Parts: sequence; structure tokens; C-alpha cells
Amino acid sequence: MRVEVVAVGTELLLGQIVDTNSSWIGEQLARAGIDSHHQTKVGDNPDRIVEVLRIALGRSDAVICCGGLGPTQDDVTRDAIATVMGAECEYDDVVAGRIRQMFTSRGRTMPENNLRQAMVPVGASIIPQQPGTAPGLICPVVMSDGGSRGESQVIYAVPGVPYEMKEMILGTVIADLRARSGESAVIHSRVLRTWGMSESGLSELLADRIESLDVVGNPTLAFLASGVEGLKVRVTAKASTEAEAKTMLDGEETVLRALLGEVVFGLDDQNMEAVIVAALADRSLTVAVAESLTGGYLAGRLCAVPGASQVFRGGIVAYHPDIKYQMLGVPEGPVVTEEAALAMARGAQAALGADVGLATTGVAGPDPAEGKSPGTVCLAFSGALGELATTVNLPGDRERIRQFSTITLLDLLRRAMAP
Amino acid sequence: MRVEVVAVGTELLLGQIVDTNSSWIGEQLARAGIDSHHQTKVGDNPDRIVEVLRIALGRSDAVICCGGLGPTQDDVTRDAIATVMGAECEYDDVVAGRIRQMFTSRGRTMPENNLRQAMVPVGASIIPQQPGTAPGLICPVVMSDGGSRGESQVIYAVPGVPYEMKEMILGTVIADLRARSGESAVIHSRVLRTWGMSESGLSELLADRIESLDVVGNPTLAFLASGVEGLKVRVTAKASTEAEAKTMLDGEETVLRALLGEVVFGLDDQNMEAVIVAALADRSLTVAVAESLTGGYLAGRLCAVPGASQVFRGGIVAYHPDIKYQMLGVPEGPVVTEEAALAMARGAQAALGADVGLATTGVAGPDPAEGKSPGTVCLAFSGALGELATTVNLPGDRERIRQFSTITLLDLLRRAMAP
Repeated sequence: MRVEVVAVGTELLLGQIVDTNSSWIGEQLARAGIDSHHQTKVGDNPDRIVEVLRIALGRSDAVICCGGLGPTQDDVTRDAIATVMGAECEYDDVVAGRIRQMFTSRGRTMPENNLRQAMVPVGASIIPQQPGTAPGLICPVVMSDGGSRGESQVIYAVPGVPYEMKEMILGTVIADLRARSGESAVIHSRVLRTWGMSESGLSELLADRIESLDVVGNPTLAFLASGVEGLKVRVTAKASTEAEAKTMLDGEETVLRALLGEVVFGLDDQNMEAVIVAALADRSLTVAVAESLTGGYLAGRLCAVPGASQVFRGGIVAYHPDIKYQMLGVPEGPVVTEEAALAMARGAQAALGADVGLATTGVAGPDPAEGKSPGTVCLAFSGALGELATTVNLPGDRERIRQFSTITLLDLLRRAMAP
Repeated sequence: MRVEVVAVGTELLLGQIVDTNSSWIGEQLARAGIDSHHQTKVGDNPDRIVEVLRIALGRSDAVICCGGLGPTQDDVTRDAIATVMGAECEYDDVVAGRIRQMFTSRGRTMPENNLRQAMVPVGASIIPQQPGTAPGLICPVVMSDGGSRGESQVIYAVPGVPYEMKEMILGTVIADLRARSGESAVIHSRVLRTWGMSESGLSELLADRIESLDVVGNPTLAFLASGVEGLKVRVTAKASTEAEAKTMLDGEETVLRALLGEVVFGLDDQNMEAVIVAALADRSLTVAVAESLTGGYLAGRLCAVPGASQVFRGGIVAYHPDIKYQMLGVPEGPVVTEEAALAMARGAQAALGADVGLATTGVAGPDPAEGKSPGTVCLAFSGALGELATTVNLPGDRERIRQFSTITLLDLLRRAMAP
């Protein structure tokens, strides 16, 4: 089964919007074990959409066509697909009813324009999920030349609004594709998230394991670099049942954890701050922060975690040195030192009444400060988990130095809580 | 002149990396007045790259092919382009010398692999800019069927590493395309950045102006929505000289400013916080912040501005209500009120010794608090620019509510400093 993605929208070609939809759909297809070799972006032009769909159907079994289903004259995907199907568009009462209902329930009057969205190519069926006004469509196609693949071809039309598109892809499209392909295997992935080792370090550590997995071909491993979010190791298992897939993933996770040790900080969507907040909550500990170069970024990441209020007291952004001296009890003098960082951590802990204090101070650049080069950063924690102060040299620009300072400090705290 | 973009890389299809390169290139082409109707992503597969390039050259004059120029076996773009050109790849001494030199200057030994990057299709010329080890190539093509456009077709090969690609596109590719198209006009843009009016409000206000510009067709206006960064109005002028283009942009800026008034907060890359920092610096005023629901985001945005240290003293993230009472002098009681916001602003101003205090408090959600629904936010400023406290109801999820709170408060302060 080979599927490609066509994203429709002139704004995508002009670079006004980055096409993240195709990337996301590509990821879902890969996870479902469906091959995808091409993705195309095309503007809101009926002839060009038709041409692109025909090229796609000439080399793939199915096309997911994303965008151009809105109510305006610019939205021509419906008509283009109807042309490829050799069908007319007809007014669909059920879809029209759904759209009217959506406006009524929000206490708004429906502009007549929106009924354009109820025009459906004859022969297409409607995707059950419809979170917005645009219906998703499943459009069977028989190419005029008989097609390269007989009568089994199909175009899925989904809206360009990401949450609408995602609901339809996950709710209907992937399952429909798998049913058409006759594929009944279950494919599941698990991501081990790591911090503290380079990609080449990880691949060296896992080289033997990857080699032996390659022989069998299932499960498979892939590395995904995610910048300040760390390196991810994704395990993908193919099995005949959910339970069997889970057993394979559990087994592989155990093997990988034994090889990687404490560089693994979390699984799947767990980020570093979520791990920290959960670990502190487990221990009934509260935390407060004092930040200089990170300027609120550390506090911001911590309190973005759902449930942060259970552990996060607050923070002091001590940007000007005076604030460090006056509010945090840092001794007058240089502020890019481990002593200053530790004093800041203790100061935040005391001033904000927390069990644990965290602190960052350093040179974000672009210019040196106190004779130290940009990227020189002192990190510290104090309190119930013990005390630690350290200096690191971080690469990158101002923004990256701030981000890496934050994640590096959180990782130190995580290791202090490791079993 | 019609140009399309082909991005090469299996990781793009799998969704491991979002293809921001094509979007960026599309934007540069649009700015240069060059039409671009298709963008395609294809994996690291020589046959498929060749096929995609041939389709592209069948409908466009030129192709910018991005990625797959690295030193590994996976990097097959060079060979695919040579196939389309009907040429062999030959070892290029000049390129090899550049690559060796790059390793030597970093004190590293060059792996022999990297010499793959010195293989150049016969007939191609080298792009002068080469910030990394991958050379950019200009590859003239005569299609085997004579091509749809005679002998003037060309493929540009640029690396997938964004900063390497950008240097080549801006340094050579755009100018080369314009020279080939015989286009000598200068195209310049200016962006007016606005906050506080919806897209439909802006277009209503500018409807007459857009209509009269449409008659002449130069300059042109476009709206770009940028979420929390506000709505942008982009003016693009085409002229025979730089000076003439600048005069046109100046004239149009004056017209638009008169129509839009104080919703315009900046130009081009100036964001809201940069405008605030500059305006405070002009007045020799310092600022401090007290944040509850924004949790450090406001401080973070302010101190990300280069030169922020001139005006930004620091902040207090008063996440737990106790911190508001104890450190900021908020009277015990409800904390999502204008009174609490104003007390927080005054408290930050006093505690951190600043001329101006800013404060945010509110319900980020997902649950209501103090009987108020998510998105209920109280904002305040105090000090040298007067005092103000207000309540706003913001849409969106937790993250957007935090972002919109920040920008809305900064905009209130900006308006307080307006001439």
C-alpha cells in the first residue's frame, strides 16, 4: 500500500504558513506501516490540483489531500477531486444539516457561503468525524486510463485546519487505509527520551543491539534528534495483537534501559519538566527558582506542566545584579560563579518558602561578561535533595544557551532524585 | 519565470523533520516576484528523485533541489541530477580543496567519505558561497525530449542544512534566476506590524486603499496572520532602482499609518517587546514584572530583547497565592481581580526598585478558578507612566492564554507611551 500526501494552499507555497500537516500525516502513515514516497504542495488552482492528483494516483494507491475545503471561492479541492473522479458535485443534506447545526449551537447565523461546503462529489462518502464546518470525504477513483492499480484507488479529502484534519486521520483514514491494504497487523511505537549523550554516543552504545534487531527486522529502532527536548530512541513493533505488540515493546524497553542507563529520562510525550514535577510531587517537595540568564524561561517551563501548582511555589528573575544581592543574599561581587548560583538557589528557597531551590546565572551573550565567554553558565540546586553547583559551557546563540541551561539544570535535579 | 522546489530526504516524509526549507525558499521567490506553483518532497531514492525532477522540469523553467548533498551513501541528489542532465559526475579539485581546508582549519582530519561531496556533474558550475562541506551546484539541463522550454532550464542543488541553504539562495540563486528571467526590476517589501484589530477589521479599514492599489498593481498589500505576534500588513513595491522602491514604500507606509493609527506598533522584524524596551530606554525608565498565570513568560520575552539589561530589572513569579501576599503586598483574598493585579504591579515595582511595574494574574485553565472561567485575565501597570488595571477574556488553550496575556499587557504599556 503506497499513499501520498497533497497539501493544497497558495499560502503554503508563499511560505506564509509552514506545511506541518504533511509532516504529521507522514508520521502517522509511517507508524501504521504504510509506505509514503512523495508529498506535494500545490496552490489553490483547480487545473493544477487535478494534474497533481493524477500524477499522485499514477504512482500510489491512495492520496490524502489536505486543505481547500473551506467556504470561499478559493476553496476548490472538492471540485478538483470531482473532476478526477469524473463526477459532479451534489448538495448533501446531511452535511448541510451538520453545518447549520454547528452555527446554531454557537448562537450564530450561518453565512450562505458555508453551504458550498455541503457540495459533495457523487460517489464520495462522508468521514464521520467533523469537528469544524468542513466535511472530510472518502472519494473512490477509477482513473480514465484504467489506472495503474485497477479500481482500488481512493482520495481522502481532509481540511487544512490541523485539529480537524488530525481527528479525521486518526478517527477514519488510517483505519480505512489499513483495511484496504488487507493489513491486519498492529503497529505500535514507544519513545525512550534521553538527555546527556550525543547521537553518535547513543548509536555506538546501541550498535550491537541495532545489528541484531536488523536481522529479524522487528522491532525496529530509530533515533530522532529534538534539540533542547533531547534525543529520542523510537522502538516500533509489528505484531498480530495489541497485547503481543505491547509485550515486544516492554521487552525492548527493558533491553534499552539496561544499555542506556540513566540517560533515559522519560517515555513518549513526557518532557523533562513533567518528569521533574512528577518526581517532586511523589516526594511531596515544593520548588522555587532564581534565574538570571534564563530570565523566566525555567519558571515558564515548570509551570506549563499540568499540575505544576502542586509543587511550584514561584520564582525570582534576578536580572540586574542588585536584585541578586538584595533579594537573594548573593554576596556583592561577581555573579557568574558557582558560589553566586548556590546563594541564589538558597535565596529563592528561603524567600519563596520552598523545599528545593534552583538557580541559573551565566553569560547568554553575544558579549562576554566578567571576563567569561558566552555560554559559560553556573547552575545550582539547594535544599531537601542536597546541594550542588556546577559550571557548564554551552554552545549556540542566546536563545539556545538559555534553553540548554534550563534543561541541563533540570536534568541535574532529576539525577539527584534517581532511585 | 516559473520555479519549483524539490526537497529531498526520507526523514521529511516520515515527519521526523518538518520541511521549513521549502517554505522559506517559497517566501524568497515570492519576494523576488518569481512564480512558484509546486513544491515536492521525495525520499533518498535515486529513481524517484530523477522522476520528480523530470516532472518538475516538464512544467517549470527551473528547480531548486534542496538536500541530499551530504557525504554518506544516502546522499544521492548529485547522482540523480547528473542522470537528469545526461552527464557523469567528476571529481572536482577546487571543491575537494575547499572541503579539506574546512577540516584543516578546524584542526580535524577529513574522513575519506567527505570526498563524495567533491563529485560534480560535468557541465555544472559551483555556487561561490559554501559555508559547510556541501557545495551548491548550478546545473543546466536540456531535457531529452527537447524540454518544454528549450535550452534555458536549470536545476540548483543546495544543501538541506538551513543556514547553508539560505546563504546560497540569497547569495546566488535568486540573483541568477532574476538574471535568467531578464528581470531587472528591484522588489522590496516592508511589513507594518499591528496589534489590537482582527483581520476582518483591518481589511475593512483598508478596503478602499487595496482597491485603488489593485488598479495600478504596484505596490501591493498582503495580510499575514502571525498569532501572538500580531497581524502583519506587507507592502511590496517593484521599481527600477533601490531608491525608487524605498520612496514608494515610504509613501505607502505614510498612507497606511494614517488609516490604521495606533494599531501599528512596529516595522519588519520589530516585535512588541523590542518596541517596549526601546520606548522605555528612550525615556530612561526601568521596568519590573510580577507574574502569576504567565509564570515567567513575560519576563522571558522582555529579557530576550538585545539590550534589555538597560531597562529590565527583573521579576517575581508569584505562582502560589502566598507569594502574592507575602512578597508583593497583595491583600489576602481573591487573586484574579484588577485590585490584585494592580497590587502586584506596585509590589514588583517597589521590591525590585523599578520605575514601572507590570503584572498578570488570571485563569490559564483548563479548570475555572475563583468562580472565573479560563481565559479571564487581569492585567495592570503602575508607576511612572500612570496606573491602569483591566480585565480581558482571552480565547484558546493554556499556552495561548499565557501568550496573549503577555502581548496584551505589553500593548497597553505601549499605548501609554504613544506620542
